[in-house]
Amino acid sequence: DISSAQFSAVYNGNPKDLSKELDVFLRRHVGPSPTDVSKMLKSLGYNDFSSFISAVIPEKVLEKRPLKLQAPEQGFTEQQMLEELKKVADLNNYKVRNFIGKGYYGTVLPPVVQRNLLENPQWYTSYTPYQPEISQGRLESLLNFQTIITELTGLPIANASLLDEGTAAAEAMLMSFHATKGKKNVYLVDAKVHAQTMSVLRTRALPQNIELKFVNPYDTAAVEAELATGKVSGVLIQYPATDGSIASLEKLTQLSKLVHDKKGLVSVASDLMALTQLKPPSAFGADVVLGSSQRFGVPMGFGGPHAAFFSVTNKLSRKIPGRIVGVTKDRLGNQAYRLALQTREQHIKRDKATSNICTAQALLANIAAMYVVYHGPQGLKNISERIFAITSILAGFINSGNSGFSVVNENWFDTLTIKVPTGSSADAVLATALNKFNINLYKVDAQTVSLSIDETTKDTDLKALINLFATDASAVNAAELVSNAKFEDFPAELKRTDNFLAQPVFNTYHNETAMLRYMTRLQMRDLSLANSMIPLGSCTMKLNATTEMIPITWPQFANIHPFQPKDQVKGYYELIDSLEHDLCQITGFDAISLQPNAGAQGEYSGLRVISTYLKDQGQEHRNICLIPVSAHGTNPASAAMGGLKVIPIACLKNGSLDLVDLKAKAEQYKDSLAAAMITYPSTYGLYEPGIKDAIEIVHANGGQVYLDGANMNAQLGLTSPGFLGADVCHLNLHKTFAIPHGGGGPGVGAIGVKSHLQPYLPKHDIMEVENSTDKSIDAVCSSAFGNSLVLPISYAFIKMLGNQGVPFVSSMAILNANYLVGRLQDHYKILFISEEDRVSKHCAHEFIIDLREFKEGHVEAIDIAKRLQDYGFHAPTLAFPVPGTLMVEPTESEDINELNRFVDAMISIRGEIDACIRGEPAGNVLKNAPHSLEDLLISKDWETRGYTREQAAYPLPFLKNGKFWPVVARVDDMYGDMNLMCTCPSVSEVAESQK
Amino acid sequence: DISSAQFSAVYNGNPKDLSKELDVFLRRHVGPSPTDVSKMLKSLGYNDFSSFISAVIPEKVLEKRPLKLQAPEQGFTEQQMLEELKKVADLNNYKVRNFIGKGYYGTVLPPVVQRNLLENPQWYTSYTPYQPEISQGRLESLLNFQTIITELTGLPIANASLLDEGTAAAEAMLMSFHATKGKKNVYLVDAKVHAQTMSVLRTRALPQNIELKFVNPYDTAAVEAELATGKVSGVLIQYPATDGSIASLEKLTQLSKLVHDKKGLVSVASDLMALTQLKPPSAFGADVVLGSSQRFGVPMGFGGPHAAFFSVTNKLSRKIPGRIVGVTKDRLGNQAYRLALQTREQHIKRDKATSNICTAQALLANIAAMYVVYHGPQGLKNISERIFAITSILAGFINSGNSGFSVVNENWFDTLTIKVPTGSSADAVLATALNKFNINLYKVDAQTVSLSIDETTKDTDLKALINLFATDASAVNAAELVSNAKFEDFPAELKRTDNFLAQPVFNTYHNETAMLRYMTRLQMRDLSLANSMIPLGSCTMKLNATTEMIPITWPQFANIHPFQPKDQVKGYYELIDSLEHDLCQITGFDAISLQPNAGAQGEYSGLRVISTYLKDQGQEHRNICLIPVSAHGTNPASAAMGGLKVIPIACLKNGSLDLVDLKAKAEQYKDSLAAAMITYPSTYGLYEPGIKDAIEIVHANGGQVYLDGANMNAQLGLTSPGFLGADVCHLNLHKTFAIPHGGGGPGVGAIGVKSHLQPYLPKHDIMEVENSTDKSIDAVCSSAFGNSLVLPISYAFIKMLGNQGVPFVSSMAILNANYLVGRLQDHYKILFISEEDRVSKHCAHEFIIDLREFKEGHVEAIDIAKRLQDYGFHAPTLAFPVPGTLMVEPTESEDINELNRFVDAMISIRGEIDACIRGEPAGNVLKNAPHSLEDLLISKDWETRGYTREQAAYPLPFLKNGKFWPVVARVDDMYGDMNLMCTCPSVSEVAESQK
Ligand SMILES: Cc1ncc(COP(=O)(O)O)c(C=O)c1O
Ligand SMILES: Cc1ncc(COP(=O)(O)O)c(C=O)c1O
Ligand SMILES: O=C([O-])O
Repeated sequence: DISSAQFSAVYNGNPKDLSKELDVFLRRHVGPSPTDVSKMLKSLGYNDFSSFISAVIPEKVLEKRPLKLQAPEQGFTEQQMLEELKKVADLNNYKVRNFIGKGYYGTVLPPVVQRNLLENPQWYTSYTPYQPEISQGRLESLLNFQTIITELTGLPIANASLLDEGTAAAEAMLMSFHATKGKKNVYLVDAKVHAQTMSVLRTRALPQNIELKFVNPYDTAAVEAELATGKVSGVLIQYPATDGSIASLEKLTQLSKLVHDKKGLVSVASDLMALTQLKPPSAFGADVVLGSSQRFGVPMGFGGPHAAFFSVTNKLSRKIPGRIVGVTKDRLGNQAYRLALQTREQHIKRDKATSNICTAQALLANIAAMYVVYHGPQGLKNISERIFAITSILAGFINSGNSGFSVVNENWFDTLTIKVPTGSSADAVLATALNKFNINLYKVDAQTVSLSIDETTKDTDLKALINLFATDASAVNAAELVSNAKFEDFPAELKRTDNFLAQPVFNTYHNETAMLRYMTRLQMRDLSLANSMIPLGSCTMKLNATTEMIPITWPQFANIHPFQPKDQVKGYYELIDSLEHDLCQITGFDAISLQPNAGAQGEYSGLRVISTYLKDQGQEHRNICLIPVSAHGTNPASAAMGGLKVIPIACLKNGSLDLVDLKAKAEQYKDSLAAAMITYPSTYGLYEPGIKDAIEIVHANGGQVYLDGANMNAQLGLTSPGFLGADVCHLNLHKTFAIPHGGGGPGVGAIGVKSHLQPYLPKHDIMEVENSTDKSIDAVCSSAFGNSLVLPISYAFIKMLGNQGVPFVSSMAILNANYLVGRLQDHYKILFISEEDRVSKHCAHEFIIDLREFKEGHVEAIDIAKRLQDYGFHAPTLAFPVPGTLMVEPTESEDINELNRFVDAMISIRGEIDACIRGEPAGNVLKNAPHSLEDLLISKDWETRGYTREQAAYPLPFLKNGKFWPVVARVDDMYGDMNLMCTCPSVSEVAESQK
Repeated sequence: DISSAQFSAVYNGNPKDLSKELDVFLRRHVGPSPTDVSKMLKSLGYNDFSSFISAVIPEKVLEKRPLKLQAPEQGFTEQQMLEELKKVADLNNYKVRNFIGKGYYGTVLPPVVQRNLLENPQWYTSYTPYQPEISQGRLESLLNFQTIITELTGLPIANASLLDEGTAAAEAMLMSFHATKGKKNVYLVDAKVHAQTMSVLRTRALPQNIELKFVNPYDTAAVEAELATGKVSGVLIQYPATDGSIASLEKLTQLSKLVHDKKGLVSVASDLMALTQLKPPSAFGADVVLGSSQRFGVPMGFGGPHAAFFSVTNKLSRKIPGRIVGVTKDRLGNQAYRLALQTREQHIKRDKATSNICTAQALLANIAAMYVVYHGPQGLKNISERIFAITSILAGFINSGNSGFSVVNENWFDTLTIKVPTGSSADAVLATALNKFNINLYKVDAQTVSLSIDETTKDTDLKALINLFATDASAVNAAELVSNAKFEDFPAELKRTDNFLAQPVFNTYHNETAMLRYMTRLQMRDLSLANSMIPLGSCTMKLNATTEMIPITWPQFANIHPFQPKDQVKGYYELIDSLEHDLCQITGFDAISLQPNAGAQGEYSGLRVISTYLKDQGQEHRNICLIPVSAHGTNPASAAMGGLKVIPIACLKNGSLDLVDLKAKAEQYKDSLAAAMITYPSTYGLYEPGIKDAIEIVHANGGQVYLDGANMNAQLGLTSPGFLGADVCHLNLHKTFAIPHGGGGPGVGAIGVKSHLQPYLPKHDIMEVENSTDKSIDAVCSSAFGNSLVLPISYAFIKMLGNQGVPFVSSMAILNANYLVGRLQDHYKILFISEEDRVSKHCAHEFIIDLREFKEGHVEAIDIAKRLQDYGFHAPTLAFPVPGTLMVEPTESEDINELNRFVDAMISIRGEIDACIRGEPAGNVLKNAPHSLEDLLISKDWETRGYTREQAAYPLPFLKNGKFWPVVARVDDMYGDMNLMCTCPSVSEVAESQK
């Protein structure tokens, strides 16, 4: 029931009905009140919410299935939700001391960073910094991240994060492969990379027909033999290796030389903490260095989100996957940051792209960067030196003969692989460790365990470990052993000697006051949802409610190692189970995988599931993927990475999918059709009435249907991928399900499937995935539940809305969008909607403002986007899915006041456009936009601009009541790409600039 | 040991010494690093920290006693501290369901307010808004608070908070008394006010010789008899009364008339939640309404901090105690907020003041205000209607005969006083409630209990209460009773019918997105420690570390009722005990009371302890208090309120106390000398070498010495009040001990005493205070441990520094101040320090910049204060303790970069002063300061100003890298005081202003 009466009933408290909570979450989550809704409906000519929705959503599409979520009808209140989540959280054991390692380590998130960045909506609700003028804060922080990576790895170019170490390794593999133009399809992998990295490599190699060879990279003869085939594109080694050992510089250099001689690329999976002691991989000729920055302050969170890093040589700078922040200048010549080299990305290259990564891990990269800003190089060295010292004391003890144990690796930074005494077993040792010492170790094999020391290891832990590894604990005086221990220096032959991280930013903010102010200063430069609407079409920038965010910094969720035994993480399993249940309800699917850690990962995973299913059906040859021309760039990129061939499908002039073309292509390829990827509602923001027909056509021709769920925010409780007939769909939990965008990630690209595909959902080699089968595809990312730490957000979002609230999320998103259309369409052409042959007079939850007609008056869409900043708004999505347009998605969370302010801004800009087209000087205000404070206060040309400072700065009265100011003028993208600079300035550069 | 070597040793990590933590808190708390310290010492001509300190602190004053804190030598690390505090917190039972009431109620702090206000340093680290141009955010919020109070109480003028309900009641009593010019010394008090209010009234009446008569105010004959004596200054009633009953409008009106006829004042202690249903006290002629705003979203916190409210009739507007925010205009005629009517305050009136309140409860007032902004009038009415409904159902059941219990009060809003069945007892009922239902009730007497329903009461609670009060629970179907219950409407004769809180601000921000943006918009207008140094002399604006702040929003500390049985609050008692121990260590005292909830309260309490002690010694007649002329205004005000006569002591031209004058006065009054109040180091920022002599003089003449501890930040670990010979001292935990100032409170004015005074420390009638005796003075505030919820902050501060760190806090504060003096003294006269006959060439932890010489050039101190805002700084303390000066206190937390920026700003301003004096137009930049963005962007007179926008806005280059902008131009204080307006604009006013 989505009537106005029902909305009022759910929204409004009734003090006399004790069975109903007064402060239901829906009140807080949606912007408009029942009164506003009436007004808005009226403005559109409707009397009731339900008649409006019926008018918008085609009858065949509107689903009337009531939801059966695991939550009260009206949802939990915020207080109840926190209590419920606390109960779930308490089922996780976070008090056990974890020495499991393997890519996940204990670390201390400095409280000042936790509170003022991770728990601060001004940081976590911002979007990927596509509008650099109002994103200089996080761009600076991401530049710091890149600088840290380049300094520690020794390679000059780093990106602003990838999804995790496993997928970063896969990117390195693919980069190596593509460097040979796909000709050399053997890839050598160190047998000592982390197990989860191997799984992801396997997954990603398969559809590209890359053959992985797991080798001992320092066995020269073996490597030479492989290289001799001429088929090897490169090698990936782990440094230090997963067993803790560290190859000598000579061996590494030799390997590197061998591979380079055959024109292969040398990629190195490494560890940032180790690199504060070890020689950087540049020292032995690495082309790529990658890994996880988790242990720089980011909670383990049961496996994610963490920012992976990726750095390359200059030669590879234009091949690097992911986003790169670069330095450029603004219109006034001042230094400014922005995303560089965007033409490399899949938005542009589509199925020619070599990576599909879009949403990354910006928030986590920022945390890691701030960790380094706070500790500085000396602080990091102190931490790593102590880690090494503790590891060495322990190794010395184990090897001293007092214990029956022996350390397998000959050298180490933080990790010891340990053979257990004969007669004992790894299982027995793990059990003793846990039961007697409350310690988790890692089981390598039946007779071998391993452990890793980290920043959080204390002398008390060392004593416990000594006692654990003593044959007879009572015979050992651990305290004495520790206090008498001789501290070895880090081996000189392995130790780096350069003066890294000497840049001022890493040597200035080491006290809390200075650190707080630095973060505050950056935060003030970034427009986020805490400031105003971010109406980015296709991005669904809705409320990220505080209650949803609170649990993720609870230690019960945050301080959990992904490889803890399952009975220690019952809370996570319970949460995941229930979230999967609710997502099945909402999508009409039979199973969900939460593993993919971004939307594009979901696409890839879904397509892999389809291909694997088809193979199982004896249809391995099916390799065609139909994708509408309007699709997001990640779709064709993911399809290509999944080994599929992309055939574009046309769209009609009225925006709807060309069903005739679809049918023709489907039939043409009916023998090789694997899938079609469709976005619903379409990327044009339309509820295509023919969606079911389209799906039938694909099915009829032997293909599976993949629905891109980026627009799920128009479906909740109103229709569903399952109902429409799709086989797979990914859900961007970071759009529809309230996970904040974090300034460019984390995301969760969960996929839902019909039952026939369920057996193929991704498994994990180390962690248990319920219902995984021997048909399951290999892991698509490093941990079984991807960005698990942010799952409580979506969990809470759904359960606080309940069966009654969920449908009003999408209904309100649709109403808000149509209200904007209603008010804007007298002033702008609304693409498709304004047209004669329109499919509908209503948009779905987003719509496209067509600005192309202004082009001949020399007004570009970007001018309007930039000018909106002067009105305090983030621009809508620019040039996607149609160049020369802005796509507006207000979401359900914006209220009528904010919607009206936006409309007022757009109408006012319309006047400026007209002035510009008429050639009036006042029109310059568009071309010079945005107006930074420095421009307003210092520029000398105000006499000749043709408009006043007031018109520039305060074009509408509401702006005087608190406006967000861009800190740089319009950024020069071209200049930056031509003069690539992706690290922060050094001491001398800063000194120079201060002159 | 305060040598440079020791500082380095404590500050720097040693990775190879496992017994030492790497990340000691001292590193994060103090600004300068060891390298900076060397530089700074060198600039002052010293080689070592300890030789510098020896040069600054007179030998007789420097104490070499090592501290023995209950903490590790080097302090706990932040992680350890959180773990330790968690253990302590877990000793408090916060899961019990509290129905205790009596002024403290369960409430829901909306998560969006918790995270973005209470947990946000931009809100909690700001100071009392003395500089309105950079405080418009919290001024607006406090104006909202005042508006809420005026709307709910019906009286037109409210202040921006008092300390708690008990002290607010005392203020009403004193206001009534003073209105009779002290001639009528009987005060009638409703026998049904809360017990803790009675205690505070007793304490405060005693030294003023006010006789309290506890009466039934509706017993007309009795009241008339009292009034007939002509001695009655007024009456205080509680509405609803503490037993839950509500007097009829007729009775209230009659009482009011009787009292008014005799020119007495009618004061009403009330409850804001009840007032959303009840007729406002204005309806029956109240002159004063007061109470606590705790239940509007503020956690109970074991008794505080909460904001008390206080509203009065227009006639009393200039008599109201505490700070009032008022509306005025800025230099450009724009609306602006600022503190109004400051001449009423004790800063000006000193011992003629009728209240000593200074620091209040701004942060909590802001929370309460935001709670109302978020719920709006309808939300509040829903909550209170449900509270009434639940109470009524329960009362109906109890009175139905099913139970042997009976409700004593005839009517109610939320509270029932219940007679237990004969044969049972209150104790037995309390025990059953707790053991069987996990419920706390309140014991009224042996046969009577009471309970209060609140916002958090659920139907499950109601069922439990029904079962509790059923004679035979098995015979009652509580679920059925509840669902069949008939809901009574709030009795029409008691119900208010006006349309309160109709102002737009209370009807706009009801969804989380809008609420977040409103708070963010306000926050951006306020300069806080998150932006830059706030060098307010005497205020000690140091780091409020995140780790110190984290525990106060844990439910284990936050959701505790002060009257829970002691065995449920062991955590609080343990924390208090240990904090008292550590404060004894630091002060050299024998006992501490944490009860006083602000510095001025500490003064009052300390003086009351002294007077009570003297009385016990048969020295009751001693009533003279010597106070230097330089003292803070609260000192004479507190003395006067404590019944003491203030005799001022002169200061010498060189700033030191005139010991000759002291001796002369002490001897002159030796028979009546009660005390001397001295600030140390002096309010002039000097270590008076004669302090011990001064103390001896007082002692020799029979007086006790009260040390004002506002300047304790120059004593920690270097000297102590105990060592100096003082008998009592108050500690502003909100200055020295890291409690944030909250934009004007909360504070904690703990007092320390020598052993002879210990028996007199304040007790509490309901809560147990350890070591209280029959000599103890009555409570000075409503709860036994005052602002208990913020005590974990000071606890963590001390314990994270440890014995080794604490002395470096004060050492660094002194070094920072002297470094500033060193750099500034070539440009400004530093009062006393620059003088020929100076006592020392060094200041203590603060110093005074003398600007009086510029007066003849028509440059005033205020011009410099305002101009500093243009440089991004909060002005130092203006005109205290010397008019025409600025007092600068950098604290230990500022680093050398920030100190240098401040110096650069001051030097740059010096150039502007010179220009002004020379009559150059460029000098106008001072007179027009601060420059708001509107001034810079819209004003039309820039051609004629004599300086450019750039000079106004960016006088130094660092400002381009992120500057804090004042949002209004210089505020017109006079205009506002002449046109008093202390509530926020109504709908029609807003509509008018938007035209
Ligand atoms: C339609 C569509 N598909 C896929 C994606 C990719 O999702 P992600 O950025 O999480 O990888 C997006 C991202 O905006 C999108 O809009
Ligand atoms: C010297 C001195 N004494 C007393 C006080 C009063 O303290 P409070 O504001 O906490 O009441 C102050 C406050 O600034 C002060 O500076
Ligand atoms: O992240 C996006 O490209 O939308």
